Amino acid sequence: MSTLGPILVINPNSSENVTEGLREAVAGMQFPGGPVIECITIKEGPPGVVTQRHVDEASLRTADLIESRPDASAYVLACYSQPGLDLARSITVKPVYGIQDAGVLSALALADLFGVIAVAEASIPRHLRNLRRLGVDGRLAGEVALEGSISVADSGHGEESYAALLKAGTKLRQMGAGAVVLGCAGMSGHRRRLEEELRIRVIDPTQAAVAMALGAVLV
Amino acid sequence: MSTLGPILVINPNSSENVTEGLREAVAGMQFPGGPVIECITIKEGPPGVVTQRHVDEASLRTADLIESRPDASAYVLACYSQPGLDLARSITVKPVYGIQDAGVLSALALADLFGVIAVAEASIPRHLRNLRRLGVDGRLAGEVALEGSISVADSGHGEESYAALLKAGTKLRQMGAGAVVLGCAGMSGHRRRLEEELRIRVIDPTQAAVAMALGAVLV
Amino acid sequence: MSTLGPILVINPNSSENVTEGLREAVAGMQFPGGPVIECITIKEGPPGVVTQRHVDEASLRTADLIESRPDASAYVLACYSQPGLDLARSITVKPVYGIQDAGVLSALALADLFGVIAVAEASIPRHLRNLRRLGVDGRLAGEVALEGSISVADSGHGEESYAALLKAGTKLRQMGAGAVVLGCAGMSGHRRRLEEELRIRVIDPTQAAVAMALGAVLV
Amino acid sequence: MSTLGPILVINPNSSENVTEGLREAVAGMQFPGGPVIECITIKEGPPGVVTQRHVDEASLRTADLIESRPDASAYVLACYSQPGLDLARSITVKPVYGIQDAGVLSALALADLFGVIAVAEASIPRHLRNLRRLGVDGRLAGEVALEGSISVADSGHGEESYAALLKAGTKLRQMGAGAVVLGCAGMSGHRRRLEEELRIRVIDPTQAAVAMALGAVLV
Amino acid sequence: MSTLGPILVINPNSSENVTEGLREAVAGMQFPGGPVIECITIKEGPPGVVTQRHVDEASLRTADLIESRPDASAYVLACYSQPGLDLARSITVKPVYGIQDAGVLSALALADLFGVIAVAEASIPRHLRNLRRLGVDGRLAGEVALEGSISVADSGHGEESYAALLKAGTKLRQMGAGAVVLGCAGMSGHRRRLEEELRIRVIDPTQAAVAMALGAVLV
Amino acid sequence: MSTLGPILVINPNSSENVTEGLREAVAGMQFPGGPVIECITIKEGPPGVVTQRHVDEASLRTADLIESRPDASAYVLACYSQPGLDLARSITVKPVYGIQDAGVLSALALADLFGVIAVAEASIPRHLRNLRRLGVDGRLAGEVALEGSISVADSGHGEESYAALLKAGTKLRQMGAGAVVLGCAGMSGHRRRLEEELRIRVIDPTQAAVAMALGAVLV
Repeated sequence: MSTLGPILVINPNSSENVTEGLREAVAGMQFPGGPVIECITIKEGPPGVVTQRHVDEASLRTADLIESRPDASAYVLACYSQPGLDLARSITVKPVYGIQDAGVLSALALADLFGVIAVAEASIPRHLRNLRRLGVDGRLAGEVALEGSISVADSGHGEESYAALLKAGTKLRQMGAGAVVLGCAGMSGHRRRLEEELRIRVIDPTQAAVAMALGAVLV
Repeated sequence: MSTLGPILVINPNSSENVTEGLREAVAGMQFPGGPVIECITIKEGPPGVVTQRHVDEASLRTADLIESRPDASAYVLACYSQPGLDLARSITVKPVYGIQDAGVLSALALADLFGVIAVAEASIPRHLRNLRRLGVDGRLAGEVALEGSISVADSGHGEESYAALLKAGTKLRQMGAGAVVLGCAGMSGHRRRLEEELRIRVIDPTQAAVAMALGAVLV
Repeated sequence: MSTLGPILVINPNSSENVTEGLREAVAGMQFPGGPVIECITIKEGPPGVVTQRHVDEASLRTADLIESRPDASAYVLACYSQPGLDLARSITVKPVYGIQDAGVLSALALADLFGVIAVAEASIPRHLRNLRRLGVDGRLAGEVALEGSISVADSGHGEESYAALLKAGTKLRQMGAGAVVLGCAGMSGHRRRLEEELRIRVIDPTQAAVAMALGAVLV
Repeated sequence: MSTLGPILVINPNSSENVTEGLREAVAGMQFPGGPVIECITIKEGPPGVVTQRHVDEASLRTADLIESRPDASAYVLACYSQPGLDLARSITVKPVYGIQDAGVLSALALADLFGVIAVAEASIPRHLRNLRRLGVDGRLAGEVALEGSISVADSGHGEESYAALLKAGTKLRQMGAGAVVLGCAGMSGHRRRLEEELRIRVIDPTQAAVAMALGAVLV
Repeated sequence: MSTLGPILVINPNSSENVTEGLREAVAGMQFPGGPVIECITIKEGPPGVVTQRHVDEASLRTADLIESRPDASAYVLACYSQPGLDLARSITVKPVYGIQDAGVLSALALADLFGVIAVAEASIPRHLRNLRRLGVDGRLAGEVALEGSISVADSGHGEESYAALLKAGTKLRQMGAGAVVLGCAGMSGHRRRLEEELRIRVIDPTQAAVAMALGAVLV
Repeated sequence: MSTLGPILVINPNSSENVTEGLREAVAGMQFPGGPVIECITIKEGPPGVVTQRHVDEASLRTADLIESRPDASAYVLACYSQPGLDLARSITVKPVYGIQDAGVLSALALADLFGVIAVAEASIPRHLRNLRRLGVDGRLAGEVALEGSISVADSGHGEESYAALLKAGTKLRQMGAGAVVLGCAGMSGHRRRLEEELRIRVIDPTQAAVAMALGAVLV
């Protein structure tokens, strides 16, 4: 049994479905003797983090949760908008990962140019703003939104969403992407299948962040 | 028992001591049921990868090794010069990580600006060249070489090398680094202690690369 | 009498002193027939916006204030940390200015390289992060903090703070700055005197933002 | 009556029509008690600044004018090519604004990405060169020229030119522009209407420069 | 008779045809009294440098050749992939030019934006990687591959390849390129004709590198 | 005898001494059968191009000269301020080189980072502005001015100026420069000696530009 505190994977929206999806996404990294990977819902959060107000409100709630869980050895902000990343880092010296940063940087560790699949067109400008903050916008082959109106919750299950992901991923590969980042917390269910069909690496950002956290706390 | 092929951590120099250090560095990520993390020496390699010729020769040997080990699920080039990274990616679709890229990108997932500790002054220009290729040179707070003449093999053990690392790390923190990357494959023995004393994150690049590889193959 | 709604200059901290300083800073831009320039204190705010939590909390309060004042024709976030800039822009189509952005961009309209005078060393990394987001970090000659411990409230009055500003400004000019931005909302009292002594342009960020707002709403 | 010298808005071409348009553009910023905003024609200039020779010749004439008017408190080079900007700054310590720089920087104070409407395709490369000099080319969503052949003088009046501006602006908004800069000195007549129809900020560069000049001299 | 050692133009593939083409390309720079420009084939090389393994193998052979020819006054790596550039510079203090770098930098000495004509689509990502290393990717108007399947050997002769070059060049000029770089060592035969028809500068990279070498050794 | 028109090397200042220095600098590139390299003084120019007004005036005179010499096959603007570069390119399709651009780009063809030796501190900001325009400021190791007050005319002759160049060059090498550009048209007399003593490449910008021009017109 590990004496390390858990890696806390924080879902800032109130949807238990999404948290359950996160649990499935990271289950493969839960080992006997390894740190517990605990996925937790912020019940007071909105059903989904959609608006900028959602993001800013989630920031404070996430900080409260982190302060209430000093037992954790690392924190993962499991929302592609990374609410409260700067704030979290200002209140703990433990590692804090935002999944967009972790996903994108993991893609750059595998390929020269990366692409991003967004759930919706509207989130692309927000993503680009973060890539500029991160300083890696010059390496973006492109960002493509799913066609049709597919919810975050549905984006990782079923043939309809898979077809949309495949279409977006194929386009990104043509645009020069050597790796593709799934641009929300809910698409992980399709990752492996998509990777095999596209023949380029596909990154689930929550998995990428948890893997980094393991590296930070384990050794 | 995992049915996944091993994560192959390749030491391109012929020093078994260095490979043994790599084994210790990644031992904490070896779990029952997880993929085997296999550290391997290229016996034909030079005692250390020091010159550019060493790098270019190591490139071809590394490719030969990768081709002889199609059973692996991922490859880690465990030398900060990353010999043969482009070549390796041209001959396999499996994930290939160079430890400099993985270390630096992992630092950026934790902090705004990063610093690098080099074993020797002479390797700094080569590192900078790679940061430019990677496109993240704008985020470098600074790179500082160890004072005194400390070998790669000695850089992870003993009080003398620890003192030199602490001095370099302290300087980097003053230069604004929020995370520090150990700029060679041999310093991992001091990582945890240095991290606790500096109170900022310290990244061992081999551990960072293996953690990323786990994320890529496990789930 | 202008039929335009007021330009609302929002002080997110609870210090009426600071707001009074803002009023003095912008008094020269208040004309008969021109829009009212109204400086307002968020009473629920902290005495000063110092920590990242202050920033994130101020973000939501600022948004609430903006929503309660649809009569305004433009909004100025009069805190160098620009709390809630993205949020404010997501809830109104009217012009919203953050004073850091406005100050820095106004400096770039006057000179090739700019410098920033910070009240305290600790705020410099946060400022740099914003310059990267803004994409103009390459034009920064340098940022220098005031020596001694001078509060935001004191930074614009008295010989002691003037001497500290002059020292910082002189250093920035030597570093190549062709214009200097006062890096907090409280230094405006010294602007004109400093400009005359340094012989390079000195920008008060609140004045710069209000000037831009005038340009946006007047014509 | 202000004791401040006038803000001198310099039209480097000989067209009094264009100067008259500048007067209308900035009339709203002329207040009782405020500095006089004086728009002036360089009679020896070409009818329009079209070629690079026009630009270089205008540079010297503009400098002569500035030297003959030491009474001014600030200078605005009211031509999108900004003839003589470096020269003007070398001969006076007073603020000198070029309208391209001022317009673009004002757009960045309001939005993440900006677009530019050019009168003619041919001027786009020259504009891009200046954006690189200014260091903000990475924030350009796009630059689109007016369709049809519309002169500078006509670009701010009439339904035909408005329709062309609306078409260009709509395209820029689709390309991600959060603010649009009118890329010549003559389009200001359509600014407000275009802003209301596009629902994003539209910047007239002369107005932006004069607003900045007010901020520099007033307080 | 010059006492200077020869400028050694190294063809890392085994094709004597290609070397003969290099000889023709640089014949115009061979003067009585000037340094000998000697084009040499690495006989052990592959028929063409196509894969990354070819590049890495060529790197070592090129270094061996350079070491065997200390009489040379400068070295030109006459392959657009520049095999062994870093290695060569680590073993000699004499000037070493890679033709991609030399070609692209020569284009930037003539125009604001440059374009590249690639023999094949597949080589574009490798070229882009090098432009990033070189730090000038922001000045690339575009890179366009020849249509049809034209070999390196054929790319400089005959109407079919000329037509393909003209089509690519025309496209690049429309994309804003003010100069065009021929993106392989074999197209020089068409350079002058293409330049006259496109009315923008066309750069043969081998000629550009030899010209630079002349400048480095002659005076 | 070459049927090519001369390469016209234009000295925009009126000093015949400087022009004579240019002739010496490029004499080594004058071959039987090669194009005439003709160095010409603009007699109406100022004794030296020192102020921005000198630059802007020189721009027009240079253009006049170019128009009066359509027989030339290429033009070199032999002043580090490159007066009239954009203008010259707008009036001729023949190659036009500015020596700063040519020198700096030639340095980048030889080394990862470059340094510049300036005659005087005051010219450094102007040089930096041009490096940003050229887009290669990120590759500058540093720029160092000669100590003492050495004129352009004296900078290429005598032990005093050589000592100052050696000191500046040594400093630049320590700052990481792999090649050094002589930052004015008059230092060429010391180039070879400095190169041998520093053991890194030293670039005379006029020689670099003429070499590029040879490559453009010869073949």
